[in-house]
Amino acid sequence: MDVFEAIAERRCYRGIFKDVSIPRDVLVQIIEAGIKAPSACNQQTPSFVVVDDCATLKRIAEVIPTPACKTAKAMIVCVSDSRSVYKGLSFYKEDCAAAVENMLLALTALGYSSVWIDGALRFDQKAEKIAKVLKIPDTKHVQVVLPIGVPLAQEPRTTRLPFTQRASFNTWSNQT
Amino acid sequence: MDVFEAIAERRCYRGIFKDVSIPRDVLVQIIEAGIKAPSACNQQTPSFVVVDDCATLKRIAEVIPTPACKTAKAMIVCVSDSRSVYKGLSFYKEDCAAAVENMLLALTALGYSSVWIDGALRFDQKAEKIAKVLKIPDTKHVQVVLPIGVPLAQEPRTTRLPFTQRASFNTWSNQT
Repeated sequence: MDVFEAIAERRCYRGIFKDVSIPRDVLVQIIEAGIKAPSACNQQTPSFVVVDDCATLKRIAEVIPTPACKTAKAMIVCVSDSRSVYKGLSFYKEDCAAAVENMLLALTALGYSSVWIDGALRFDQKAEKIAKVLKIPDTKHVQVVLPIGVPLAQEPRTTRLPFTQRASFNTWSNQT
Repeated sequence: MDVFEAIAERRCYRGIFKDVSIPRDVLVQIIEAGIKAPSACNQQTPSFVVVDDCATLKRIAEVIPTPACKTAKAMIVCVSDSRSVYKGLSFYKEDCAAAVENMLLALTALGYSSVWIDGALRFDQKAEKIAKVLKIPDTKHVQVVLPIGVPLAQEPRTTRLPFTQRASFNTWSNQT
């Protein structure tokens, strides 16, 4: 799929996934797209646990009981390391986000859908509970979960503010 | 360009750019890719100032005097808004990073190169100096600068740790 088409087609899918399993080579291809993302000082802070075992998927869905998580055929759990990589600064959020965006574009091109779950993990110790299921070391933390599958029905794309409210040339003007 | 090819071809370019200008419709196409990126709760916190005016480019290059900035034919200055969008949390870093990654893939597909400048802006009030040049409002801040152009010579791609050191299936194993 053309990169501009993938960017345009990517959307969050929060609904029920079809009962269609995802081959491991497809999951590896998606992860490889994430691995190729840039990271600050090339420190490659994000790691990934790919979950496709039914029992493990179920345990994570008990922590995040949404329709997408309860029916996902696989999940990518993105694990961050908040160590500083440049003059005392850490960029684990940026590193993870770039990898997630690459993976979302990759899975879109391959006919799958997902939703970027982050904020919801910050409450009720959800991130910590998932870390425990996956035996993530104490030095790392669960940053993002991507439930993946073939969507049962396509959801409408969210709208975007027009170009003139998001961008301008050479000086700030009219942006929200 | 195929999305997987764009992901594989994207690389940081820190060198000198050729003296080849970038049409405005190309810059708009790159920004539109950024606008289509996901954002937490679809709050679209990143904004973009596209700089292609020689005098303004020169003023920014005085703040970031690198070879790429001094010879860039355009720059995209990504402006963030750190307001909270979900239960007291803000996701401006993630929102901006997803938009930047989309734009890097877009400009790669169109034959241009760039480098993600972030950490360097956090010192010597560089971000604030650029904000002043572009008249960014006080409620926002300069998060990322992308100098853009046609590379004079291709730089080697940075290496990545292998899959087995970045990822595992169903439980943490062997990642760095």
